[in-house]
Amino acid sequence: MQTENEVVVLRLGHRPGRDNRMTTHVGLTARALGADRVLIAGDASNPKETIEDITDRFGGPFEAALTDSHRQLLREWQGVIVHLTMYGLPIQEVETEIHEAHSNGPVLVVVGAEKVPFDVYERADYNVGVTNQPHSEVAGLAVFLDRLFEGRELDREWADATHHVVPKETGKQVEPVDE
Amino acid sequence: MQTENEVVVLRLGHRPGRDNRMTTHVGLTARALGADRVLIAGDASNPKETIEDITDRFGGPFEAALTDSHRQLLREWQGVIVHLTMYGLPIQEVETEIHEAHSNGPVLVVVGAEKVPFDVYERADYNVGVTNQPHSEVAGLAVFLDRLFEGRELDREWADATHHVVPKETGKQVEPVDE
Repeated sequence: MQTENEVVVLRLGHRPGRDNRMTTHVGLTARALGADRVLIAGDASNPKETIEDITDRFGGPFEAALTDSHRQLLREWQGVIVHLTMYGLPIQEVETEIHEAHSNGPVLVVVGAEKVPFDVYERADYNVGVTNQPHSEVAGLAVFLDRLFEGRELDREWADATHHVVPKETGKQVEPVDE
Repeated sequence: MQTENEVVVLRLGHRPGRDNRMTTHVGLTARALGADRVLIAGDASNPKETIEDITDRFGGPFEAALTDSHRQLLREWQGVIVHLTMYGLPIQEVETEIHEAHSNGPVLVVVGAEKVPFDVYERADYNVGVTNQPHSEVAGLAVFLDRLFEGRELDREWADATHHVVPKETGKQVEPVDE
């Protein structure tokens, strides 16, 4: 998020076609809840396009990119790496340390699809469970980001939007953004 | 969650096949993050089965059921109804009121797929946006439940599990539950 150390989401294990929707939701969740970028390992041009369309319409800054060198990224990342997994340590036990790490540098948040290779577990500074129950990488990411930013992401401003939603008690209102 | 007023998630707009995975993630997120039941409108026997398999293995209490009378449910619900939608009022502005409502009675949380009929907006006591940005009903539900329960759901206990995860710094450990 602007004025804070960068938070990047790395989506691993995307299977073209089959995972398009989940990967799109991972990317849109990253954007809406305060991350600066999503990197998707593999052939995910369809989700990338959807995420960029939303950013064009509702604003940024937010970047979606594909990568075929996520191992290099993981090796060379200058900051803390958090891997979200139901097998990891409970978020409520490690979030204070992760907050501190984020105030000192960037954070890479890794979310997998089905199987994540063991070297990711080894490379991560924190393997973190948003519960130790099986549920959804989208849900895990959402709770993680909301806790990382302590709700500040809900009040962030969006730049270069063409449209914005006017919050309403009942009904739907979307308006063009005045320059 | 046990010892608290009931929280039920109602999933609307499920399209068989196409939405199976998203609906499964909605149901598993509801379970993992403290809801007591998920009701799915429509023909969602496949997601229901997956959610029940997870509950059999990792514990409950949690119930998944299909409904073809969600209008009646909405009409007759004795408690507060929260509809999660990007068009609604920001969660940070209404969560205190919703907490209070939950301490006084049950909460029905409605999450849609693509299009939610207008009468749901009208029937809901609160139309709530987890941001006014487009992202994911799974992410919205996750953040909503984590805030509703104020993190208590992360420490809940599970009954009648056959297996449980042993949280680890690195790696995966799943063990049978001793009686």
